[in-house]
Amino acid sequence: MRCRKCSSRALIRLPRHNSAFCAVCFDDYVLEQVRRAIKGDRMFGRDEGIAVAVSGGKDSLVLWEILTRLGYRTMGLHIDLGIGSYSEASRRKVETFAQPRNLSFVVHSLRDEHGAGVSEIANGMRRPACSACGVIKRYNMNAIAAEHGLPVLATGHNLDDEAARLLGNVLHWQDDYLEKQSPALPNAHPKLVRKVKPLYRLAEREIAAWAVLQKIDYIVDECPNSQGSKLLLYKDALNRLEAAAPGTKHHFYLQFLDRQKAREALVPLVADLRECTSCGQPSTGEVCSYCKLIATLKVAK
Amino acid sequence: MRCRKCSSRALIRLPRHNSAFCAVCFDDYVLEQVRRAIKGDRMFGRDEGIAVAVSGGKDSLVLWEILTRLGYRTMGLHIDLGIGSYSEASRRKVETFAQPRNLSFVVHSLRDEHGAGVSEIANGMRRPACSACGVIKRYNMNAIAAEHGLPVLATGHNLDDEAARLLGNVLHWQDDYLEKQSPALPNAHPKLVRKVKPLYRLAEREIAAWAVLQKIDYIVDECPNSQGSKLLLYKDALNRLEAAAPGTKHHFYLQFLDRQKAREALVPLVADLRECTSCGQPSTGEVCSYCKLIATLKVAK
Repeated sequence: MRCRKCSSRALIRLPRHNSAFCAVCFDDYVLEQVRRAIKGDRMFGRDEGIAVAVSGGKDSLVLWEILTRLGYRTMGLHIDLGIGSYSEASRRKVETFAQPRNLSFVVHSLRDEHGAGVSEIANGMRRPACSACGVIKRYNMNAIAAEHGLPVLATGHNLDDEAARLLGNVLHWQDDYLEKQSPALPNAHPKLVRKVKPLYRLAEREIAAWAVLQKIDYIVDECPNSQGSKLLLYKDALNRLEAAAPGTKHHFYLQFLDRQKAREALVPLVADLRECTSCGQPSTGEVCSYCKLIATLKVAK
Repeated sequence: MRCRKCSSRALIRLPRHNSAFCAVCFDDYVLEQVRRAIKGDRMFGRDEGIAVAVSGGKDSLVLWEILTRLGYRTMGLHIDLGIGSYSEASRRKVETFAQPRNLSFVVHSLRDEHGAGVSEIANGMRRPACSACGVIKRYNMNAIAAEHGLPVLATGHNLDDEAARLLGNVLHWQDDYLEKQSPALPNAHPKLVRKVKPLYRLAEREIAAWAVLQKIDYIVDECPNSQGSKLLLYKDALNRLEAAAPGTKHHFYLQFLDRQKAREALVPLVADLRECTSCGQPSTGEVCSYCKLIATLKVAK
């Protein structure tokens, strides 16, 4: 198997591109996909500071590494979810990544703030852990980025994540979510930062391979709360379809985005947002989801 | 496990309805789903003759049995595709089903008409067998129903078929196909008959169970040409999702239909059809797909 670009010995096959690359050309390919996402979807400019959501997993650390190599000014943002040894190990991975590279980052600890981790908070709400976790991460990530004057929040969501989420939204015909599923969400309110997903053109296995080649030390375990999650189920279904027809995920998600852009040109997205009466952050209701969630925690105490 | 309706011992569980039925109440359930489809989607009236497409498989024979029990006037319509012993066995199943019930049917044999079976025709066109088969069946079914003065053609497509087809259309964002995927297609041209799918509310395993209970003798083997077909792949993916979340297929397809009805109320479907210059049947192009297909066969000879 030969590299498609330089004909030296290939290291990785990319069936969906009917291609194979050596280590050097694969590195070019990965960086090019990210550059293309940033530019093509107008994610951010050279002069903007970027908050990078870093969990300690491969996707977020790879994202941070690439943005740094591309010369962007970044600040890492880690939410310590307080899930026992899993969260401790995750936090250490972020620290060990950032320190030798001289990258600045902030850690927000749920236990320090609320005396409870995400699992207890979710239990208190009688909600699945992943649903409470989503609210908590979205809220804090946005608030902290805004607090530090960073106009953009970048997350490590990859092609597999986005295609699986799209499949879930389509299976349930979730129009609201379908409308909002974009790799570059503008800030619909002055207190909301822009949200971007620069890795959306890269498949999970491409990111994992790149992380190994770059010797990035990341937390390999999945979050213990994600066991049996719907998203993993959708990923598995798509992986089976992908194995039989390479390019399935790619076309499914990228064609969706093309259609969405065409539609948005006709009907621009308008969000009806006010400020939460409890915390002042943007909200669609009188009280935001995060404050409702934290309120149940206080009642439970 | 008890029957949800009469509390006697249940014979079949329906996880997607969070239900279980005894043989008698299951029979009621199956017939009610078909009645609901016929009425709710205005498929046909009591006074209309119905051509029933019968392959010899469980779905089509179950459909024929139910329509007969509901008192509709039917005529079976079997296309002998000329796939060796598989087609011979299929044809025999249709005959053995119809004769003791005194049901009328016609058989249209591809070999008698063209001297070739569907596999040779598809080879000649360098098209996948299932794609050529679709064109051939649609064309002949419509022409024969119209010839016999029957305004409606009913096929045995079930919930699994329709959900799998929808998944394929969504994965490729096939707008044209998405628009046309309805269990009741009006006749867009005087030479086209109405096309209806009265079993679309019933899952494949429900139909199989009902066939066994009714002692319907059907051909169990899948068509040898369907091996590795995309539709089977999509069915498999949906079955896995269904196992983890019963009701997935049902909601995916029925919610799609609801959305489609809402959309059609705004933009009615208009087909731009003329008559094929070769055979006179309705066509979107100058020459219809069937005549193009048969032409390649003549060239190959």
